[in-house]
Amino acid sequence: GAYNKIASLSAEERSRGVLAYSSGNHAVAVALSAKLFGIPATIVMPADAPRAKLERTRALGAKVITYDRLRESREEIAARVKAEHDLPLVKPFDDALVMAGQGTIGLEIADDLAALGVSEAAVLVPASGGGLAGGVAIAMGDRARVYAVEPEGHDDLARSRAAGRIVANAPGVRSICDALMAQEPSELTLSVAQDNLAGVFAVSDDDVRRAMRFGFDELKLVIEPGGAAGLAAALKGLASRVEALVVVASGGNVDAEMFADMLART
Amino acid sequence: GAYNKIASLSAEERSRGVLAYSSGNHAVAVALSAKLFGIPATIVMPADAPRAKLERTRALGAKVITYDRLRESREEIAARVKAEHDLPLVKPFDDALVMAGQGTIGLEIADDLAALGVSEAAVLVPASGGGLAGGVAIAMGDRARVYAVEPEGHDDLARSRAAGRIVANAPGVRSICDALMAQEPSELTLSVAQDNLAGVFAVSDDDVRRAMRFGFDELKLVIEPGGAAGLAAALKGLASRVEALVVVASGGNVDAEMFADMLART
Repeated sequence: GAYNKIASLSAEERSRGVLAYSSGNHAVAVALSAKLFGIPATIVMPADAPRAKLERTRALGAKVITYDRLRESREEIAARVKAEHDLPLVKPFDDALVMAGQGTIGLEIADDLAALGVSEAAVLVPASGGGLAGGVAIAMGDRARVYAVEPEGHDDLARSRAAGRIVANAPGVRSICDALMAQEPSELTLSVAQDNLAGVFAVSDDDVRRAMRFGFDELKLVIEPGGAAGLAAALKGLASRVEALVVVASGGNVDAEMFADMLART
Repeated sequence: GAYNKIASLSAEERSRGVLAYSSGNHAVAVALSAKLFGIPATIVMPADAPRAKLERTRALGAKVITYDRLRESREEIAARVKAEHDLPLVKPFDDALVMAGQGTIGLEIADDLAALGVSEAAVLVPASGGGLAGGVAIAMGDRARVYAVEPEGHDDLARSRAAGRIVANAPGVRSICDALMAQEPSELTLSVAQDNLAGVFAVSDDDVRRAMRFGFDELKLVIEPGGAAGLAAALKGLASRVEALVVVASGGNVDAEMFADMLART
């Protein structure tokens, strides 16, 4: 997503660098993409983001500006930096080009399903602002039913979809899914969700820990909390029975202490 | 390896089931293969094998006989069971058919290297009795230089190779690599190692923990200690510089407590 957006800018537009805000994985993606284009990146990240994400973003050469997630608005900070330095903003989800780039995962899934001869599939995708899930749903079209999965209490996409308008999460609700903490979908992602998603599920922190443990025991994969939301929904049997169930594990940037705590609790 | 051996038995030979001894991963392989053939499996395993391996073997329907690794001989116990029940023995490494099956990993690596257009590669393979490393080396032929990697103190393959005869490890030497604890190579694996391996390296427990941590941080893979020996050698720079370095991660069956301890130490 980040790469697709940056690649779509003219050389002149991106010459002085790019700006982004992100809870972590989009930050890493923007930092890596900027490095590939040989341009600087300035990224606004919550001060309490996992160290793995902050360190990885900095290691890729990005300038990181941290903020207090409970008291400050990342959009406002980004707007200020943008006004000062006139840098193009690479949004984490509210951008058709970002959604299209993230949606290429759907094309890969479609290729795999075709190779396996599977004609009926459900795809479970973790959702924060709904860009990844919406992009995958558009890319797959009628080749699969695509479901978004949110943390309980951060079910803004489900409630917005039900209400037919943007409904924000209650402030201060906590979740271990640091990657899925967007306050609300955008007009764009809500519209895409209404037209393209088969449904939206919610999972609890304990569901997510059990999914991370399943990843450790059975898949031998390190999956971060937010990345495991789709797997958690699958393990709970939330998706309707179909020929194939596909899970997108959308990140593995988890701090060692958090992972050890999950292992001890499950 | 286990499957190839069991498939090579006549229906009559395998009708009453198979027998094996293993520190763990071969046990799981034999249990799974026996299940696929619809026959019983009896497997002799050390009582102190990782719980993940004992439970997985039992969950696949095998009968597990545990023994004290420091005071009893698994070969003697297996011979006793074999004499009593007349079951074919599926050895963990000292068998050309087991080595050939494990060696198919080398064919997959060769295909991948060819697809990438890589003409010069080194392959690092964890070694216990030397079956996997030898099988991979034979399968790859002159398409790569294949190195075995042993735990320090369990470098029986290196010392046997240097001496030109079987040299056992000193008794009681400890290593966190529970999967790489064979006391000595067999005539077969030593002969294959002498003719086909480019070299043998040794890594310490700390090297292995660092490699497991690299797997967690960078590869998002859960790798067990013995499975990470090849990666540990790669990260230490033990293999000579070549166009491509390939690492075989030969297992991910690690107990949660051990993994959490590794995360805390690294």
